[in-house]
Amino acid sequence: MNQSNPASFLDTVRWNRDGLVPAIAQDAVTGKVLSLAWMNREALIRTAETGEAHYWSRSRAKLWRKGESSGYVQVVREIRLDCDADAILLVVDPQGGIACHTGRERCFFRRYEKGAWHVVEPVLRDPAQIYGDG
Amino acid sequence: MNQSNPASFLDTVRWNRDGLVPAIAQDAVTGKVLSLAWMNREALIRTAETGEAHYWSRSRAKLWRKGESSGYVQVVREIRLDCDADAILLVVDPQGGIACHTGRERCFFRRYEKGAWHVVEPVLRDPAQIYGDG
Repeated sequence: MNQSNPASFLDTVRWNRDGLVPAIAQDAVTGKVLSLAWMNREALIRTAETGEAHYWSRSRAKLWRKGESSGYVQVVREIRLDCDADAILLVVDPQGGIACHTGRERCFFRRYEKGAWHVVEPVLRDPAQIYGDG
Repeated sequence: MNQSNPASFLDTVRWNRDGLVPAIAQDAVTGKVLSLAWMNREALIRTAETGEAHYWSRSRAKLWRKGESSGYVQVVREIRLDCDADAILLVVDPQGGIACHTGRERCFFRRYEKGAWHVVEPVLRDPAQIYGDG
């Protein structure tokens, strides 16, 4: 994706007081909602420039190219902005079929039922293998 | 949906410093991501109890039953929680086919292309009609 006028498209976004905006990732093929992460300006610029999802890791306080450790890169087909300009939707082709750091296909693997959250999706790969423990 | 132990499922959620959590709404049939809104504890309880999406309106600072003004209620099929317990996914049957206050099917109607955001989805109904101006 080209980027002819970075200031204007970045300035349209209503960044929160931490300079971030929530970014949903959706699988372009299955339609499944994979994750909700956060972007700062640099993450959005890099996502637009490279066509690969970049986020801001709040826990590690650093820019994070999705898949940089795991290999599970998200190739971006579409970047969308909502009506209030305070949420981003990435439509992606997830490489390798695992979006969650727990080794599951996606992060939304708990479902509410009768007063409790229930895990309803399996671990596809041991995180220790993904992140190379040992 | 029943709710046998409200404290525990609410306490699992990692509410932010404002007591809120982002909640994605996805159309159960089309798979389209409709919106990102915010929930407080009461909104999540009411959503679970009634089976209709409730949010916390940050702009109006009040609990908001989706569709209370517009009639475009979201009937909830699934409530999901992500790995970090700080994002909710609602899988919904949107009544009436309009989720956005601009009168569009969904809020994510702007797409990034070549350095700018472009509106790529039409207004289906004039908001003045939806919200009863005049």
